Formats: sequence, C-alpha cells, structure tokens
Amino acid sequence: MMTLQDAKDFFQNDRFATNMGIEIIEVGEGYAKCRLPVSDALKNAGDSVQGGALFTLADFAFAVAANLQGNLTVSVHNSISFLKPSKGTVLFGEARVVSQAKRMCFYEVSVTDELGTLVATMTVTGYTKLP
Amino acid sequence: MMTLQDAKDFFQNDRFATNMGIEIIEVGEGYAKCRLPVSDALKNAGDSVQGGALFTLADFAFAVAANLQGNLTVSVHNSISFLKPSKGTVLFGEARVVSQAKRMCFYEVSVTDELGTLVATMTVTGYTKLP
Amino acid sequence: MMTLQDAKDFFQNDRFATNMGIEIIEVGEGYAKCRLPVSDALKNAGDSVQGGALFTLADFAFAVAANLQGNLTVSVHNSISFLKPSKGTVLFGEARVVSQAKRMCFYEVSVTDELGTLVATMTVTGYTKLP
Amino acid sequence: MMTLQDAKDFFQNDRFATNMGIEIIEVGEGYAKCRLPVSDALKNAGDSVQGGALFTLADFAFAVAANLQGNLTVSVHNSISFLKPSKGTVLFGEARVVSQAKRMCFYEVSVTDELGTLVATMTVTGYTKLP
Repeated sequence: MMTLQDAKDFFQNDRFATNMGIEIIEVGEGYAKCRLPVSDALKNAGDSVQGGALFTLADFAFAVAANLQGNLTVSVHNSISFLKPSKGTVLFGEARVVSQAKRMCFYEVSVTDELGTLVATMTVTGYTKLP
Repeated sequence: MMTLQDAKDFFQNDRFATNMGIEIIEVGEGYAKCRLPVSDALKNAGDSVQGGALFTLADFAFAVAANLQGNLTVSVHNSISFLKPSKGTVLFGEARVVSQAKRMCFYEVSVTDELGTLVATMTVTGYTKLP
Repeated sequence: MMTLQDAKDFFQNDRFATNMGIEIIEVGEGYAKCRLPVSDALKNAGDSVQGGALFTLADFAFAVAANLQGNLTVSVHNSISFLKPSKGTVLFGEARVVSQAKRMCFYEVSVTDELGTLVATMTVTGYTKLP
Repeated sequence: MMTLQDAKDFFQNDRFATNMGIEIIEVGEGYAKCRLPVSDALKNAGDSVQGGALFTLADFAFAVAANLQGNLTVSVHNSISFLKPSKGTVLFGEARVVSQAKRMCFYEVSVTDELGTLVATMTVTGYTKLP
C-alpha cells in the first residue's frame, strides 16, 4: 500500500487538484483525508465555495483512498448532496471504503470544515481496472 | 429572463468557473450551454480531464440555466456519470430543464467535446429560494 | 438479441415484478418499454403510487433492455428523481442505453403515464458480467 | 413525535409496503428501522431479492423516519448502491437523518440482513411540505 509520501508524490501530478490547493494529509486502508484552504478563487457568484470545488475535493479524496493499493480505480458515478454552505476557512474531504469487490467499489466521502459543519456528502461508485 | 450578456455579467463573479476558463455561449428558456477549452491545468494524474473540472462545467451550466428567471436556485443533489474520457480540445456543458415546480427543479446536463464524444451526463436536483 | 417473446419468457421468472403486474411491451437495441396498471395495491399512505413501485418499474425496464444481448447485466447504482405524482391509471417505464462499454453501462429510464405526465426519471449504472 | 405504535398505525395504510411484508420495528429522532422477511415473492429472474424490493424497504424506512415529526416529507431524489446480494432470510432497512433544514432534508439508509451483510446503501433528498 502507498504511504502518505507515495500518495503525495503520485497525486501531485493531478494538476487540477494541486493548483486548487488540495493537499493529502492522511491515508489508511481504504481511507484518505485531504484539506483545502478556502480562498476567493474558490468562490461562486453568491460568494460561497463553488460546488465544483467541493466536488473536486471529495472526488480527489476518493481517488487517493481507492488507488492506494496500486490498481487504477476511477470514478464511474458520483452522487453528491450539498447540505450547508461553509463559513470556515479550511475544508476537509474524508473518503472511506464501504465495499470493495474485484472490480466495483463503493466509497462514502464527507466534506467538513474546521467549524465542524458537514458541508457535503458524496457516494462514489468506482471501477478498478485489473492488469 | 436574463439575456446572454446579462448572464455573462452576473456569472463572471463566479471566480472558480471563470478562472478555469468556462464561458457561457448560449442561453434559452431553462437552457444554457457553456464551453471550456481543455488545457494541462485541467488534467489529473492519469492525464485525463479531472472529474472535478467536468463536474464544474456541468454544474455551472445548470446554475446558469436555472437562474435565468431571477430567483436564486442552487444545487441540492447532483448525480454524475463519467462515460468516456475526452480526446478533444474543447468541452461543452449543456443544461436543460426537465421539470420546474415552485421550489424544486430537475435538470439534465450533458458534457460533450468537439469530436462528438458524450463524456459525462448529470442530473441536478435544484432548490429555488423564493423572495 | 432476445425477441419480445424471449424477454417475456425469461423475465416472467421475476416474481416481484410479475406479481406487481409489470408487463414488457416493447424491446429494441438497448431499449425496453414496460407497462404497469395502477391499482390500490401500489399505493402509499398518501394515496399516491409508492416510490418503490415506480422504482421497480424503472429498474425492471432497465434490466430488460440491458440483458437483451445475453450477458448478465445488473444494476450497480440507480439514481431516481420523483418529479410529479401521477393521476393516471397506467404507468410506462422506458429504458434507453446511453453508453455501453465492455463491462460498464449507463441507461436512462423515464416513467410516464397515459396522461403524458413525466412521473420520474432514473439513471442506472450497470455492470455486465462477462462469461 | 410519533411513537412506534403511531407510526405503525399511520403507515399500515401504505399498501405497497404492507403487502410486501415490511414492518416498522423501531423509531427514534430522525431514525427508523424496518424489517422484511425474504420470500420467493421478492425474487428476480436471477433468484436474488429484486432491487425494487430493496429500494422499497429503504425508501419506506426513510419515509417513516422523516415523517415522525408530523410535517409531510417526501422523497425527491434517491440514490441507491447495490453492494452485495443477500443470502439471508430477513432484511433490515435503517434510515438516519444526516441534515434537516426547513424544507430540505438528507437521510442515509442501509439495507442489511441477519448475517450482517451490507446489501445496499441509499441517500435520500427529501422535501418537507410546510402547512
């Protein structure tokens, strides 16, 4: 399984997530936690963090968690609920495996902030490409 | 209803979408079409356009289409399917209303490229805040 | 590909759908249409057709459409929007393929009634088990 | 808040769920647990419990949990993942509130069996009709 440093090295090549400021801060078996500092560059016309930024944080946490074992796993279907706008300054995306079969997997991801607000939840259906 | 220019003016304040390079190119009743030129800055570690960028394009097209009438409408739940990676250089997000009740609405959004590939489809459950 | 009669013969063994009164009325490439007469037995406590009955009709239409080619295809993730209660006496579920890769497929399903009301829409992520 | 007996009395009028054999066994704040004995009448052509029966159990558990407070709350969008077929003889649907705002709410529902298998998970976006 990849270490935290392995994951950081591999995923720094995800230019979209890296440019946004997303950082991997913890990995474990079927688990990853990422952080994203909130800045004006992430805001929508209503001055909230854009849904796309929340999605990206959540999907990136999934991608890290699901790829730690080495076989390429991609998002097939993602279902995200936007619960409450954040008033915080840092967002966290935490992905946890729910079920992993040979090719199909299911993850749950939460997006929270440093104030403890549950901002969004996402379920991901992933597909693992076997060698 | 907002004109194309009204929508451009209003949504240029969506800094996340604007910085990514998303542009509104067409609006109509319950409809919006946006474009996003593909660049390396949108790529993931596997060198495909990041799912978060596809989601942002699709959700932004929804936001434009759903807000043309003037009452603030936000995404409550989005469900996105990633069908096929794009090999194109420009992506298009097209949102169409399926159903609009007093407060709840449903939209379908497609993401395609200039080669005609259907890259992703999304359904959005939106909520309209009445004055 | 299965004919309409082949599909009827195979799926009459789906006791849950058959007992509810669901009938296959049309099949085509990546397509199936089913019908379900509305009766009190399908109603919820609010006297509308139960969401589970609408889901079953939609998922069954998907199952028929996706299995016409012979390789077993199952629902992995279904995402259903309940648009408007039906005031009709017959419901129709129509499933259409959006994308079919080697193992993963995506279908869109609509549920309508004889009055032309669009009652529900569903997207299905399916998985094809290869021999 | 409704008691268990109140909920049983109210929901016995859900003829679709009642006829299937679904029973409410526990309620709490934003919570409900229901049970469904597995019988041949719930099976699909592949001899597994039909996805529609699993959905109905899960959605019914949501409906109970979300309506205990008295204001009518309905499913707007449901997103269900089918994780693993059950080999058990009894299924349980457990719904828990994730977030409840004035009109929109979000619930998570699990479907398990007496063997401890996690058969399906569902997220529900609900809408509360205020008087």
